[in-house]
Formats: sequence, structure tokens, C-alpha cells
Amino acid sequence: MPVRIIESKQNARLKELRRALASPGRNERGLVGIEGPNLLAEAVRAGLHIACVFVALGSERLVEALGLPEAVEVLAMPRELLDATLTTETPQPVAALVEPPDWTWAHVVGDRKESAALIVMLAGLQDPGNLGTILRSAEAFGADGVLSLEGTVSEWNSKAVRASAGSVFRMPVLHAGEKEAMERLREAGVRILATTVQGAKLADLVDLAEPVALVIGNEGNGVPVDLALKADEAITIPCPGPVESLNAAVATSVLLYEAARQRTAKSGGPRDRRGGSR
Amino acid sequence: MPVRIIESKQNARLKELRRALASPGRNERGLVGIEGPNLLAEAVRAGLHIACVFVALGSERLVEALGLPEAVEVLAMPRELLDATLTTETPQPVAALVEPPDWTWAHVVGDRKESAALIVMLAGLQDPGNLGTILRSAEAFGADGVLSLEGTVSEWNSKAVRASAGSVFRMPVLHAGEKEAMERLREAGVRILATTVQGAKLADLVDLAEPVALVIGNEGNGVPVDLALKADEAITIPCPGPVESLNAAVATSVLLYEAARQRTAKSGGPRDRRGGSR
Repeated sequence: MPVRIIESKQNARLKELRRALASPGRNERGLVGIEGPNLLAEAVRAGLHIACVFVALGSERLVEALGLPEAVEVLAMPRELLDATLTTETPQPVAALVEPPDWTWAHVVGDRKESAALIVMLAGLQDPGNLGTILRSAEAFGADGVLSLEGTVSEWNSKAVRASAGSVFRMPVLHAGEKEAMERLREAGVRILATTVQGAKLADLVDLAEPVALVIGNEGNGVPVDLALKADEAITIPCPGPVESLNAAVATSVLLYEAARQRTAKSGGPRDRRGGSR
Repeated sequence: MPVRIIESKQNARLKELRRALASPGRNERGLVGIEGPNLLAEAVRAGLHIACVFVALGSERLVEALGLPEAVEVLAMPRELLDATLTTETPQPVAALVEPPDWTWAHVVGDRKESAALIVMLAGLQDPGNLGTILRSAEAFGADGVLSLEGTVSEWNSKAVRASAGSVFRMPVLHAGEKEAMERLREAGVRILATTVQGAKLADLVDLAEPVALVIGNEGNGVPVDLALKADEAITIPCPGPVESLNAAVATSVLLYEAARQRTAKSGGPRDRRGGSR
């Protein structure tokens, strides 16, 4: 593995990584910064273009194990230099600049899809851990994609990337304005369901096997009222206990589970894909 | 509200708070430390004994609004002095030492319960945010209590307390050895279900309306093998997507939801407690 050693924090690539981590989202070259060998391995597995890898001197074997193409630029540097660039509390000895897929509306509501659309629409979600967890659950429960409206935390925030356990590299995430999102969903025949705490239909009594988009709001304030009023229906999770609210990532995941459950029941599909008792 | 002003970090109560926050769990006086006006309000609402309240000078109104009994000791101090005592990144101007309820086995598997036991058993869960989120979901979905086995993060870790959104003050949490926990559950006729990723029965095909305990393992390694082997059955969450694992708090919450759903369906109970469409 050809490695170039750098020793200055003024190195152009290192500065690009620092900027990418400080303001999450694609930079002018379309790249995002990620931290840690496990996430880099997930990015490689997901087939992302790896623009540049950064590794602390002495930890090169973590990168060698990934079997990167020869053409990938690998920069090695003293651990302190890399640590000072990273954002996590306990920095790992590997980071990278990678190019995520260019997601389009066709990925989320394409007419070639075999199954009814299942979409998550985030309206002002703030906690990056929640966002990453939602991406992980969205992939697990077979959602088509996530729409991120203005005011929602970036999926490239390092905590979001980590919480997604790699799903951020595979799950389509589209940034859209509220108006465009509503129009696209309506055109595609997707029912828009606002999640609320009260005064709504119980999720298990709503048909979630038809094409639906679940609107998830801000952790503190929920779905903005004007957006909730434009939705086709308001739904809530039946909770027998005395607590009225759930963590936003939990609520989203439970609704995705309920949708997947209803879809399997309706299709009479195979129930033994993961089964078999001990 | 009688307030005593302190100016030294050597103050005995302040030292007690610092120790309580640094090593979460009841101290020798049976007290735990909590941070923030919202959590203190939740503790008051839950009827906990409030041993001592700490407030930054200038923020006294946050405490006055709580309507504490006259007897509660309130200590005010310069903001920097309080900040230096607290553990959160962005410290709040209020903290307290409070006395949580003394939970016993009767609270978790008591024979006076009206409904079938629904218990969460944590075996090595490490992330305090996950633990707090599980307590919140456990309360929402009507669980009876949580068993915390050795090696599980403390529910009094400040991140756990915060993520629980106050449920930590109301949901019975018992610390127990594995042997005792298994014996108590068996005596009470509770089936012990280990959650695994593969090779297990799908959760929606398992009868979760009978008395059950859901065993949740460590985020990285899952349920310890020796414990899984002692369980009555292994269960997993059906995931149509390509990802094989869920966040631990999400997995626990989905199973609790599924249990609550099955119980409601079985009882034919009221479905309109939270309902009513817009």
C-alpha cells in the first residue's frame, strides 16, 4: 500500500478533512468526512468512491486490511496531528474523505419499485444520534428512503454517521423543501402521515401497507403545526403506560416495524427468512 | 424560599453532589445526583424525597417555580462553582440530591399484579443513552420493571437519567445477579426470552401476551452465550431489509411495542384511549 507521510497541519487534504468534519455535508468536491476504521470498511463495502484515507503512523494495518484499490491516496501522520483534526471525544486512528451516492427522487419514489413506498420524512429532527438510528432502522425495515426537510440535522454529522452503523452509506437521503416533498409524494400516490402524541389514529388501525410517508418532527416540539395540517392523516403509537411520548428514533422505528409487519401479513409472504427455533 | 448561599467548593453538600455524579448510584445516604430543572421537576412530580437543591445565583426562579416543601435545603452559589461540579457538556443552573424509591422484587413480579408480567432484563448494556431510552419505552409500553444484571451501565448515569425523560424516577429498576434473577422469574412463571439476531423465532410469532422477560445484551456482543442457553427461547425481530441488527434501545422498544400490541389484541380491550381522528 503506497503511503505518503505528512507532518504539517497545513496539508491541503488534512485541511479539507477538518472542514468537512466541521461543517457536515458534501463539500465542493462532493465529499464527506468520516471517522474510524469500521465506518471506512462500511463505506468500502457499500461501494463508495474513497477519495483519501488518513491514518495515524503505527496504525497502517487497519487500512491495509480493507484492501483498498491502489489508486486511493493514503496519508499517514503522527497520531497527535490526526487527533487534532477529528471531532469525536475519543478519536480513532483512521479517517477518510468519501463520495456518497447521488440520490435522486427516482431512488425514493421511483415507479419501478416492486413494493409500496415506505418513506420517512424528517421535519426538524435535531439529535444526530436519533437521525443515525432512524437511518439504521429505515434500512432494517425496508424503507425506500428518507426525506430531510430544512432545519433537520445533517446525516453527515459524525454522531449521525456513527449511530447509523453504516446505513448512511446505503439508505437514500434526499434534502428537499417542504413544498417539493409534498408535491412529489402526492404525485407518486403516497399518503402523508403526521406522527403526533395525541388526537390521532392508532398506528395499528391505520393501513400502513399502502404507500406511506411518516412525518417525524423535532424532539421537543413534534411535527410543525402547518405541516401536520397539510398531512393526509395524523397517527400515534398506542402506549398503554402513563408516559405520553417516546424517543423520536424509537417512535420512528416502531412505526416502521408496524408497517413492515402489516406488509408481511398482507402479502402472506415468507415468514421463515430469519426463522428457525433453537 | 429560604436559600443559603455557599461560596466554597469544599462545602460538604457540594462535595456530596460531585461524588454522586462522578460515581452514579445511591450513595451512603441512599441519594443520587441529578442535573437540570426539568429532571428535578420530574423527580418532584414522581414524589421523590428531595434532599438538597443546588442553584446558580440568578436562577433561583427556576427552583421557586417547583413549589418545593419548606423543609428542602436550597443552596445557591456562583454559576462557575456549580458548573465545575456538574458532568454535562453544557451544564444547567440547577442540580439536586434526591432519594429514589426502594424497589423490591414485589414491584417487578408481585403476585398482586393485574396483568401478565412484562419485564426487561439488561445483560451488559453499555450505552447510558440506550438505557435511559429503554426505561422511557418500558414505561410507555406498560412494562413492570427492569432487571439490571452485573456489567450493565448505571441508570443513574447522567446521560441515562436525561434520556429516560423522567421514567427513571418511576420505572422499577432492580439490580440482581443472573442466578437470582433467573430463579425469581421462574418462580413467578415468567418465560425468559433471549433476543438474538439470527436463528431465533420471529417476535410476532411468539406469544408475548403471557408473562415474559426480554433479555437484552451488550450493544456489540449481544446476550452472553451462557445466559442465552439458559433462556426458554430465543427471539428476533423480523427485518425485511438487508441490515441484520438494530440499535439496542430500538430493538427493546419494538419488542415491548409488539408485546403491548398482542396484549391489547388478546384482551379485546379499549382501543380508543388515545384515539380519535383529526
